Parts: sequence; C-alpha cells; structure tokens
Amino acid sequence: MNDSTFAEYESNVRSYCRSFPAVFRKASGDLIYDEAGNPYLDFLSGASSLNYGHNNGLIRQEITAYLQEEGIVHSLDMYTAAKRSFIEDFVTHILKPRGLDYKLQFPGPAGTNAVEAAMKLARKVTGRTNIIAFTNAFHGMSLGALSATTDPVKRSAAGISLPGVTFMPYCGSLGSPDTTLEYMEKTLTNRGSGVEPPAGFLVELVQGEGGLNTATSEWLQGLASLARRLEVPLIVDDIQAGCGRTGTFFSFEEMGITPDIVCLAKSLSGYGLPMALVLLKRELDVWQPGEHNGTFRGNNLGFVGASAAIRNYWRDRRFQESLAVKSAYIRQTLQDLCTLFPEGEAVVKGRGLMLGLDVKHGLLAETISRQAFTNGLIIETCGRSDQVVKLLPPLTISDENLKAGLGILRRSMEQVLEDTLLSV
Amino acid sequence: MNDSTFAEYESNVRSYCRSFPAVFRKASGDLIYDEAGNPYLDFLSGASSLNYGHNNGLIRQEITAYLQEEGIVHSLDMYTAAKRSFIEDFVTHILKPRGLDYKLQFPGPAGTNAVEAAMKLARKVTGRTNIIAFTNAFHGMSLGALSATTDPVKRSAAGISLPGVTFMPYCGSLGSPDTTLEYMEKTLTNRGSGVEPPAGFLVELVQGEGGLNTATSEWLQGLASLARRLEVPLIVDDIQAGCGRTGTFFSFEEMGITPDIVCLAKSLSGYGLPMALVLLKRELDVWQPGEHNGTFRGNNLGFVGASAAIRNYWRDRRFQESLAVKSAYIRQTLQDLCTLFPEGEAVVKGRGLMLGLDVKHGLLAETISRQAFTNGLIIETCGRSDQVVKLLPPLTISDENLKAGLGILRRSMEQVLEDTLLSV
Amino acid sequence: MNDSTFAEYESNVRSYCRSFPAVFRKASGDLIYDEAGNPYLDFLSGASSLNYGHNNGLIRQEITAYLQEEGIVHSLDMYTAAKRSFIEDFVTHILKPRGLDYKLQFPGPAGTNAVEAAMKLARKVTGRTNIIAFTNAFHGMSLGALSATTDPVKRSAAGISLPGVTFMPYCGSLGSPDTTLEYMEKTLTNRGSGVEPPAGFLVELVQGEGGLNTATSEWLQGLASLARRLEVPLIVDDIQAGCGRTGTFFSFEEMGITPDIVCLAKSLSGYGLPMALVLLKRELDVWQPGEHNGTFRGNNLGFVGASAAIRNYWRDRRFQESLAVKSAYIRQTLQDLCTLFPEGEAVVKGRGLMLGLDVKHGLLAETISRQAFTNGLIIETCGRSDQVVKLLPPLTISDENLKAGLGILRRSMEQVLEDTLLSV
Amino acid sequence: MNDSTFAEYESNVRSYCRSFPAVFRKASGDLIYDEAGNPYLDFLSGASSLNYGHNNGLIRQEITAYLQEEGIVHSLDMYTAAKRSFIEDFVTHILKPRGLDYKLQFPGPAGTNAVEAAMKLARKVTGRTNIIAFTNAFHGMSLGALSATTDPVKRSAAGISLPGVTFMPYCGSLGSPDTTLEYMEKTLTNRGSGVEPPAGFLVELVQGEGGLNTATSEWLQGLASLARRLEVPLIVDDIQAGCGRTGTFFSFEEMGITPDIVCLAKSLSGYGLPMALVLLKRELDVWQPGEHNGTFRGNNLGFVGASAAIRNYWRDRRFQESLAVKSAYIRQTLQDLCTLFPEGEAVVKGRGLMLGLDVKHGLLAETISRQAFTNGLIIETCGRSDQVVKLLPPLTISDENLKAGLGILRRSMEQVLEDTLLSV
Repeated sequence: MNDSTFAEYESNVRSYCRSFPAVFRKASGDLIYDEAGNPYLDFLSGASSLNYGHNNGLIRQEITAYLQEEGIVHSLDMYTAAKRSFIEDFVTHILKPRGLDYKLQFPGPAGTNAVEAAMKLARKVTGRTNIIAFTNAFHGMSLGALSATTDPVKRSAAGISLPGVTFMPYCGSLGSPDTTLEYMEKTLTNRGSGVEPPAGFLVELVQGEGGLNTATSEWLQGLASLARRLEVPLIVDDIQAGCGRTGTFFSFEEMGITPDIVCLAKSLSGYGLPMALVLLKRELDVWQPGEHNGTFRGNNLGFVGASAAIRNYWRDRRFQESLAVKSAYIRQTLQDLCTLFPEGEAVVKGRGLMLGLDVKHGLLAETISRQAFTNGLIIETCGRSDQVVKLLPPLTISDENLKAGLGILRRSMEQVLEDTLLSV
Repeated sequence: MNDSTFAEYESNVRSYCRSFPAVFRKASGDLIYDEAGNPYLDFLSGASSLNYGHNNGLIRQEITAYLQEEGIVHSLDMYTAAKRSFIEDFVTHILKPRGLDYKLQFPGPAGTNAVEAAMKLARKVTGRTNIIAFTNAFHGMSLGALSATTDPVKRSAAGISLPGVTFMPYCGSLGSPDTTLEYMEKTLTNRGSGVEPPAGFLVELVQGEGGLNTATSEWLQGLASLARRLEVPLIVDDIQAGCGRTGTFFSFEEMGITPDIVCLAKSLSGYGLPMALVLLKRELDVWQPGEHNGTFRGNNLGFVGASAAIRNYWRDRRFQESLAVKSAYIRQTLQDLCTLFPEGEAVVKGRGLMLGLDVKHGLLAETISRQAFTNGLIIETCGRSDQVVKLLPPLTISDENLKAGLGILRRSMEQVLEDTLLSV
Repeated sequence: MNDSTFAEYESNVRSYCRSFPAVFRKASGDLIYDEAGNPYLDFLSGASSLNYGHNNGLIRQEITAYLQEEGIVHSLDMYTAAKRSFIEDFVTHILKPRGLDYKLQFPGPAGTNAVEAAMKLARKVTGRTNIIAFTNAFHGMSLGALSATTDPVKRSAAGISLPGVTFMPYCGSLGSPDTTLEYMEKTLTNRGSGVEPPAGFLVELVQGEGGLNTATSEWLQGLASLARRLEVPLIVDDIQAGCGRTGTFFSFEEMGITPDIVCLAKSLSGYGLPMALVLLKRELDVWQPGEHNGTFRGNNLGFVGASAAIRNYWRDRRFQESLAVKSAYIRQTLQDLCTLFPEGEAVVKGRGLMLGLDVKHGLLAETISRQAFTNGLIIETCGRSDQVVKLLPPLTISDENLKAGLGILRRSMEQVLEDTLLSV
Repeated sequence: MNDSTFAEYESNVRSYCRSFPAVFRKASGDLIYDEAGNPYLDFLSGASSLNYGHNNGLIRQEITAYLQEEGIVHSLDMYTAAKRSFIEDFVTHILKPRGLDYKLQFPGPAGTNAVEAAMKLARKVTGRTNIIAFTNAFHGMSLGALSATTDPVKRSAAGISLPGVTFMPYCGSLGSPDTTLEYMEKTLTNRGSGVEPPAGFLVELVQGEGGLNTATSEWLQGLASLARRLEVPLIVDDIQAGCGRTGTFFSFEEMGITPDIVCLAKSLSGYGLPMALVLLKRELDVWQPGEHNGTFRGNNLGFVGASAAIRNYWRDRRFQESLAVKSAYIRQTLQDLCTLFPEGEAVVKGRGLMLGLDVKHGLLAETISRQAFTNGLIIETCGRSDQVVKLLPPLTISDENLKAGLGILRRSMEQVLEDTLLSV
C-alpha cells in the first residue's frame, strides 16, 4: 500500500488532513516534518495540546525513563506512584500558589469526557437538568458535551435532539457585556421566563473554536455573582484556554473569579498524550464511588508528562513572564497586519497566546491558511463561519520561529489579498 | 505529602483503588508491583486493556524508538506515517485475512467516544433515533453511550433522561435464545408496538461488565438477519471482548455474522494507551468531513503500539492457537472450582479468555476478590449484582502464572467459603 | 355556499367524513339522518361516546330544563350545584355500590386531557418519569397521551420525539398471557434491563382502537400485583371501554382488580357532550391547587347529562342485565358470520358491547364498512391495520334495530365477499 | 351528602373555588347567583369564555331549538349541517370581511388541544422541532402546550422535561421592544447561537395569564417579518384574547400582521361550551387524514352557539364599536384608580376589554380580589406573581353593571388599602 491508504481506508470524517495535505513523520519543538523531510512551523500546536512544543526534551526524558524502568502504564483508577506525584505537583505548584483548593477527578482521557463529568456533577449537585452554555461555545463531541456546543453541523450530526442545555448570549454578543448579563439575569431569575432553573453555567473564557471571543473580567464577575445567587456551580471549560495558553496557567486567574468546577485536557499531559482532569470544589465532591468511570482514566504516561511539564515550567514565574512578552509581540504584529486589509475588515481577537485575526469571511481566512501551508506554516481558522485566522504557536516557541511564522503569515496574507484584488 | 494524598485530593468517585488498596509503581508482563515491591498477579489486565501484558517488551521497544527518533506524537487527524503504518497493518493482518472490508474512523481515544460515533452514524444513515441495546449492556459513560448502558447507578448519575435507546432482552435472558429473538422481531416489525422504528442494533457478544453473558451464534445470526430486513446497521461493541479476548481477534469471527459497524478500544494500542477505533462498512461512510471529531484522535504512540501488537501477535495463527489452549484450561479449572460451592450455586460464564464464575451473590464474589488480593491476585467482579468473579488475565500469560493465579483463586475461595461456613 | 363548503374550508385532517360521506342533520336513539332524511343505523355511537343513544329523551329533558332555568353553564372549577349533584350521583350510584373510594378530578373536557392528568399524577407521586404502556395502545392526541399511543402515523405527526413511555407487550401479544407478564416482571425488576424504574402502568382493558384485544383477569391481576410490588399506580384508561360499554359500568369490575387511577370521558356526560374525569385513590391526591387546570373543566351541561344518565341507567342492575343479553346475542351472531369467511380468516374479538370481527385484512374490513354504509349502517374498523370490523351500537339499542343492524352487516359482508370472489 | 361533598370528593387540584367560595346555581348575563340567591357581578367571564355573558338569550334560543328538533349533537368529524352553517358563518362574517383566507381544523374541544395541533402542524411543515414561545406565555396544560407555558408550578407538575420549545423575551420584557426583536433576530439567525433553527413562533398578543402584557404593532410586524425570512409559521394563540376580547374579533386585526396559524377556543361557542378551532393558511394544510384527531371535535351544540354568536354580534360593526366605548371607559376608570396607590405602585395593563391594574404585589392583588368577592364582584388576578387585578367583564355588559362593578372594585381597593395602612 502507499499514500492512497488514507483515501481508501480512512473514513470521510477526517478533516485536518484536508487542510494540511502532507504525511507527517517527525516533530520537534516548533516544527513538524513531512515524510520528505520538509519542515513546517506549527502555529496550530494540536489545537493547543502541544503548549510545550513537540517532543519537548525535558518531558520526553521523564516519559522515556518511566517506560524503561517499567513504570505501570495503565492502571484504571487504582493508586499509582505516578498519579500521586502528579497530584502532588499539581497541588503544590499550580493550586496552592494560586490560592485554589480543588479535588481532582480523572475522567476519561479526552476533554469531552471531562465536560461530561462536569455536567453530570452540576446536575447531581443541584438536582436540576438545565446547564447554561453560551453562543459560539464548543465543549466536545460526545452527546452531553455536544448538547452544549453550538456548531450547527456538529449538532445535527447527532441525529437526535440535544437535551438539557439553554444557550445565553456570550459576553459582548448583544452589544455591551452589561446587556448580556442583564438579559441573563432577567431570564434566569424571572419565574415567568419559561427557562428551567439552571443546574450550572458552563463557560469558556476565550472561545477557542467559536472565534476567539473573550469574556471581560466584569462580565465574568457578574456571571460568577449570578451563579452564586442562584446557588449553582460555575464551570470553566479550560480545555483549550488552560495550561498557560492565555498567559497564565488557568484562563481565569486574573479575572477575579474562582470557578466551582474546572475542566482541563489538551496540553495537560505536556506531551500531547490523552489526559483530562476535572477540578471540583471540595464541597461539590458528592460523587459515589464509580458513578462516573472510564477505562483510560489512569494513563500514567500522561501523569508523568504532566508532572514534568509542571515542574519544568510552572515552579516559578519565569515561564509565565515570557508568555506576556510573546503575547504583546504577536498582538502588535497582528495589529500591523490589519492595515493590509480594508479598514474595519480585519480585527484582532483573543488574548495571551490565543490570538487571531478576524478577516470577516470564511473563504478568505481559509485561503490564507492554505497559502500559509504552502509557505511552510500550519495555521488554522475558527469562528462561526471560520472567518478567524487563529494563532496557537507553542508557548515555548523561540523568538526566531515566532518571528518567522509571523513573517510567513504576512507574506501569505499579502499573496492572497493580491490574488483577490487581481481576480476582482 | 504522603499516602493520604489520594484521600485528600482525589475525588470520591475513585473506585478500583478501593478494591485493591495499594499504591502501584511498576508492572511487567503478568505482574504488578506496589511501592514496597510486593508483586500481584494481574487477572484484571486493565479491564482487558492489557491483553499483551504490562510493558510488553516487543511493543515497548517500538514505542521507545518512536519517541527517541522524535516521531510526531500528537497530530489531530492529520496524516502521519505512524497512522498509515497502523492502517496498513490492520488492513493486511486483521481485516483481509478475515475477509472483512471496513473503513476506519478514529474517534476520541476512549471506548465511549467510539460508541458515540457509532450511534451517531447509525442515526445519520437511517434518519432515525432509536438505537436498540440489550439488557445488562455496558457501552460507556458519556451521555450517548450511557443511554445504552443499563447499570442503574451509572444511569441515574446522569441527572437527566437518557434518550434514544430502547432495550431488548439479551440472548437467553428470557429463557431460550429463540424467545428473545421472537419477542424482538414481534416488537420491531409490529406497527402497533409503540417502539419507534430502530436506527440500529448495538450489541456486545460477551457482556464484559454485565456478567459475562454470551450470545449464541444462532441468536446473533437471527439478530443480523433482523437488522438486514429492517435495513439498519448492526453495531458490535468489541471494546472489551475484541483484540483477542474471546480467542479470536474479533469476538464475532466464528459466529457467522459480519457487523456493519464495530467499536474497538481498550487493548487496541497494545500497551494500555488510550486509542479507539470505529470500523464501518464502506457504504455507511456517509460522514461529512469534521462532523465528528476529537483532539486526541491522532495518538501516534497508540498507532505505533497497535502496529507492533498486530505484527507480533496476529501475523499468523500461533497466538490464536495458544489462546484456545489457555481458554480450555481455565474453563476446566473453573468447572472444578464449581464443586467447592453447593450444587447450582456456581456456574461458569463467558468464553475465550473472558471467563468467570457466577457465584450468585455479590457479597460473596466481592469477598473472594478481596481475599484473592490479600493472597496476591488482582481479580474483579461483574454482573448486575457484581456476583460474577471475572478472570481477565493477559492473553500472553505464562502457563506458570496462569496456574499460580488459578491456584490463588481456589485457595481464596476455599478460605472465604470456610469463613462463611463458620459464620453460619 | 353549498356542499363544497367542507372540501373548500375544512382541513384535510378530517377523517370520519371520508368513510361516511353524507351531511347529517338529525339523530335520535339508534339512528342518524342525513339532510335528505335518509336514516342510518349507528353502530359507531360516536366511538362509544353515545352509549345511551342519540338525543336520549330522559337526558335531554334534564339538559333542556337546566338551560331554561338559566342554570350556570360554564364555571371553570368553581363549585356549582350541578357539579355537586353529579359528584353525589356518581359516588352514590357508581362508586359506593362497587366498593370503590376515589376522589374526582375534572381535567379538560376530552379524554386526552384526562390521560395527561393521570400521567402527570403518576409521575408526581413516584418522582419518576417512565410510564409503562402497551402494544396497540391508544390514549390520545396531545403530546403526553400521544407518547403512550402506538399508532405510528399519529406518533410521527408529532414531529418530535415522544418521551417518557416504555411499551410492554399487551396480554397475549407474545403468545400466552403468562409470557407477557413474565417478560414484564423480568424487565421491570431486573436492575440490568436498562428500562427506567416505572412511574406507573397505563392500560386499557379492551383496546378499542388497537383491535379489540382484551386482557384476561389473570393477566390484569398479575399486572396489578406487579404494580403493587413496585409501588406505582395502575392507571386504567376506561375512556372508550367504560360507562357500560363492556357490560359493566367500569371495564375492570369483574376482573379482580382495583385501579389506582381511572380515566373516563366519551359517554360520561350521557349526551355526547365533552366531559372527562379522573378518579384517583384518596392517598394519591397529592395535587397542589391549580397544578393542572383547564378552561372547560366545569362544563355544567355535561354534569347534568351525566347525572341524568346515572340516575336513569345505573341505579339498579336492570340496565346492566340487558347488556349481558345483547352482548351474548351479538357475539353469537358474529360467530355465525365467521362461517362466511374461509376458516380461520375471521375471529370474534372484544367483550360486552365492544365486539368485532377480525377479518385479517384492512382493505377487506374497510370495504365491508363502506358497503354497510351504502346499506344504511354506520360501522367502523380498528386494529393496527384496520382489519377489525368494530361494533359499537348504543347500549340502549332496541332489539329490532340490533337485529336489523346485524342483518345489514351480514348482507354487506356477503356482498363484499361475493365481489371479492368474482374479482379473483 | 351536603356542602362537604366537594371537600370530601373533589381532588385538591381544584382552584378557583378557593378564591370564590360559594356554590353557584344560576347565571344570567353579567351575573352569577349562588344557591342562596345572592348575585355576583362577573368580571371573570369564565376566563374570557363567556364574552357574550351567561346564558345569552339570543344564543340559548338556538341551542334549545336545536336540542328540541333532535339535531345531531355528537358527530366525531363527520359532516353535519350545523358544522357547515358554522363554517359558512365564520367564513362569511369573520374571515372574508377581514380579508383572511384560512382553512379550519377542529381539534379536541379545549384550547390546549388547538395549541397541540398548531405545534404539530408547524413541526410537520418545517421538519423541525423547535417552537419559539415567549416569557410569561400560557398556552395550556397538555404536555405539548405546557412545554410552551412558562408558569414554573405548572411546568414542574409535568414531572418530566418539557421538550421542543425555546423561550424568547416578549415585547418589552428587556426594555424597549426593539431590544427584544434584535436579540431574537441575532439568536435565530446566528449559526453559532446554539438555539436550534425554529419550527415556528407561538405568541399571544395580550398575555392573559402572564400579566396582560401587550405586544406593540411594531414588534409584531418585526416578529412576522422574522418568521417570513426564516420561512416558518407565525402562530397566534388567540384563545383568551380572541372573539372580541381586545376590541376586535381577532387580537391581531389592527396590528398589521396576518398570522399563518391561529388558535381559538374559550368564547368561540358563544355559550361557554367546549369548542376549539385552528385556522391555517391554505398552503399549510399538509395534514394527512386523521393524523390528528379527537372524540369531541364535532360538538354540534358548540357549532350552533358559535353561529348564533357570529350572526348576532359580528354581522356589522355595531358590537365592535360598543367595545371601544367600554374599553375607553374602563381604562379611564383604572387610570383614576391608580391614584389610590402610592405613585408608580399601580399601572394599567392590557387593551380592549382585557384590562387590569398591576399593583406590584401578589398578596395585595389577591386581597383586593377577595375583598371584591365579599362585596359581590368576581374578579381574578394574573401575572407571574399574580400581581395584576384582571378585568374580564362580559363584552355585552350593560353600562349600569359595568359602572357598578368598577364601583365595587374601587371600594374594595379602598378597603384593602386602608387595612394595609392600618396594619403598618
């Protein structure tokens, strides 16, 4: 068999491979290599699953050592030394310095499993069913998480009504943030609104798939306050935005809120290995043993990678400080890129290292992405009509590579805009 | 921090750790070691996720090499050389020799994600919503799969009605297999039954969690024939029973049926790494790109492990032949163990290396399991009241360890039965 | 405008008018008259809403008097003298002599409103959602009642999934009644069946729309016993079978069961006026004021008619005794009619004055119905393929009219069968 | 038995009888009489079911004549002369003069049955499930209509999730009408809102139970325009507001919109008899015969009463003109009554003869209602906390009675306010 293998045997559902039509073999740091050895700068980072780059040496070393000493790899949810180390590192270096006190639940290994667990828990705690999610939200593909996801193509693929979620307007989607809050408050506290009393709020602080929309701290504090008054948990889905992507470990750190439940996955393992985590406030831990389970909730390579990532990057503030510098640089570059477009036709979105350029038209954004790939840069689009060019470089990206990638992006935009002009 | 870490920080939902209260560190082949270095024979095998044993050297070697040469680890659903190798090995050594022609869909990395994808696909293909599942079924914890799962504790933890599934009696659960088939046929072809027209059947050939109930080939052929007449897909959930566990790679190989959709996970990666797979008949591949996705559907370490497992164990019939010998030996031993119990109070269940002893009482089975652990054997229970002692040794277990494990099991049963007698 | 009025202005949903294409003007006792004055014997009786015949003089007299003295007609659920009289008559002449002690709830005026109220109450009492209904059941057209109705055309017209009901096989539908009971018991008491714990059973003792299937007393007692053990209410839908239709006021009187909740409507008002009633055991009256309401739950003309019907027909046993005679006569005649058909191709169904002939083919039954109409007899079909010719004459029908109607039925069958023969 | 009959035998669900604790016997025009002969002015009118007063002589005469000549009373949905007359009168005197062209569907006899039919039809026409209803809506008690009703007590009495409806803010409930429209438009045309594409809009022009909130013509035109652009039906529930209650036969006549579907019931029969009607645009009549049915959809006394009402009151504009005068008089009186209350603590709500005083506190409104009853006036409250005193006098009320009733209302308010003052 040869390269036609995929076309012949892999389901039509495959998707990213259509945007980036190469067969990749190796990857290191900021770069992916195809079979011919051609390098690509990676501004996608596994949809933020590779925040520490590909095959990060500091982490690989510990994973390899663990494999070599025959550390237990798969352990269901039995106790292991690797799991304990992870818990300790996570509590010591992540939770405690931030003044957070959560218990940890290990659900199945994907983000969607974490969201499923969080939704169950909110319903169990409140005895209600109605989870409040938001416009442009993305939370996952299994039926529970999909119910809280807005993408109409993905929703309709369920082939069944998606129950138990009411959508409210995300911060700013109705004009000012205050308007949204006011609407939400009116709707959820009015006995005559028809909307069932909520079981909890499920929110992303930056909507990674939904177009890099961001919630302001005022809006989030209003939301947290509303959740408190309604006595229901505030769940932050930090699967894409967490693990440093917004410039701090959690996306909510500088927002003046403390969620009741937090979902983590993607970059958690530090090495792109499947691993997910639910953080829950101590008083919400009303689970009975085994009420929610999953075969792969004890992926010890994930624990080892996660510990290594924490110990190498989050023991002091140096890494976080580097993110601020990079973020500012990218933002400024994107601001500059706006001038390539007619006035108002390009807007910078997002925060931290989760930034993008909304170019208003899905086809335009997609053409830029494809041109960039031709030029050696992997970069994706997002948003309700895929109109946002989204930059998710590794957080550990070198200054050279960052500059190079942004250079490719500028060149690609220029090429596309020129072609567009020519074609008019 | 010390051993209290788990109690203090891990959610109450943790479960297996309560049955096997040790902290494990290493594992090799048939054995797990706790932190003090005490060995335990493993008759649980990660709930059938470790069919080739812990840290199988043949597989580890390839995973380690892949890591060392910086093979790409996380690739979303982009094309990779490792994925292509896996597809080729799977097609060449698994599908073709068995006369099977499926396309492969890589869902999220857990079994429940595969089931979610299969249910969506059946609904999409038929334009209907009603999946037929069976008494005592277990398919997963995310909302879609949970809807097809019967465990009442896990169902009620959803906190919301579980839609879109009708349960039919599993083979033999109403007396003769024929009775069940007849009932199902009457119900599903009668316009007046009230049961919505089905979107597909979802069945396990051996109910791994449900008590090791097995479906006969006649029943399965009747079911397949009914599915054909109703023009709906027959989905086999081979997550626990597949990958050799029943003595053949797929549990359905010798049953005279060819499912339309097959779900695999657990032992697929060969090394306990999270990886799942949906096989679908070519004509069912009506997916649009990206209709179902998931961040970890490109876990290349899983692909590498899975390829290694296939090439090392399934290129010829030797491995499969060894399973038959082991199965016969275990079955005979279990038959002998029955005589320890009052007549009719112990019954052998299951097939292949997925055998167990139904001792009729959950408390008794659990006491045996705990006694076995004290004696150095990890062994679990299953069934609707956890009344079945379930043996899931590695398929690669050595004859010595198999004999030793069965010896511990006998001794543990004798101890428990003696105590019980004394306590009467 | 003229006769085309209906075709031009009435929705296509109209149905009975297609089987009986005349414009009716008057009706008296057993007869309906079209505008030209042609009489039709009525063996349909408003689908059992006119058990005391059309414009029954004894009842009309009281309704007319009430109108003339300006008795209050519409009273929401305020107290009225007419309602009190009805309650007293119902308690004194219906409930007490039968040793029954129920409270009365007046829902909206249609049967479907009574079923909705009963289902709500069962769910409220048990805190569960899953109502058990049966194959071939018909309970109404509003969304709740429709969920418990099996007709696939009517179900699919809902355009939405119908939640909260699980269907079990009706008495005899799987072979012997015992088989059904056994299946039901296994399914509902097995923790692994996947079927949610029930909130109640909803059953018709004779399935008026479903094909005149009858439940045996043994089966009903088994069902009642199961309901008792599961501590959930047994709801009898006596909307079509009640008010004397089966030979006793309630269909369950001689069956050895006492339902927890009973739904009545159709003939309750005695005069074809919209009126429905829910009877509930005293201890089930957990309703809060106004939790279920409806504008027309105080239809005083209905109360007056219902009182008159009770006082005129149910104060002693004479009426009931006359029903036994008529039932035996009809049954014997139907038995004789069977001989017109090839052996085994016609079977008598039903009981009381709710009898019919199952002629196995919907088209045949319909042709007979149409021929009968041509011959001056209104008679309908029922069953899952409309294969049962259903006789619902007024309970008060004169012997002459009964004989005449049965004569028309025989002649019509002979004509149809002769034509069929000729056409072969 | 005596007056304790109700307490002993009628279900606790009874409700209005608690506010108006008398046993009523007769009723005539604007007055109801209890058993002792005490008269009460009726400002409730059967919740707008008695728009032509109690026992209206013009209508009674025709109903009585019909009974006496043995007109057919119950006819399922067969053609009858009475039904044809009604259709002709309705088309000739109601639809045609207003330039409306609808087909008529006769559902079950209650308003809730009409709403169920309308919702089914919208779903059938669009192939979608999601009906858009509004804050403070009330549409009925059967499961489908209840899903579109906002009252939390009534919703929770369902004991099951209420599916298939999304609630949007009613005109003005978010500030300006424009805000609501804008929000609705953004939500329903945004692919990322998470809200399923709508199957139709279901709206009351005056929210009779919800607090006499009114929709402006601008808002309604915006709503109609949105429905048109989304190609989904606009359903007006005119059950309480129709039949003249707002000053015109339909509540939408002077609003610049033409609904696609209209639900009528309550006062339709003219005499308080159960009767409901669905009007549907010709092109929406996609019903198959019998897809929606109901035993009492041929209540001929209702047809006769409805014809009489139309012929007596709606053949020319005199009746309608009288309503304008009365409305202005009531509105002025209510404005005057506002001055009894602290500034801003009483607001006039509603339009036509569907007016009320929002006194901001449920307890206050209820106390006024009870005081009024003591003073001989039946008057109800509505609104999400029952804070609106609602005036629904017969449309035919004499000037004397109207003045008298308003006088009682003033006196009752004065008494209550004085007591309140004293108690402070």
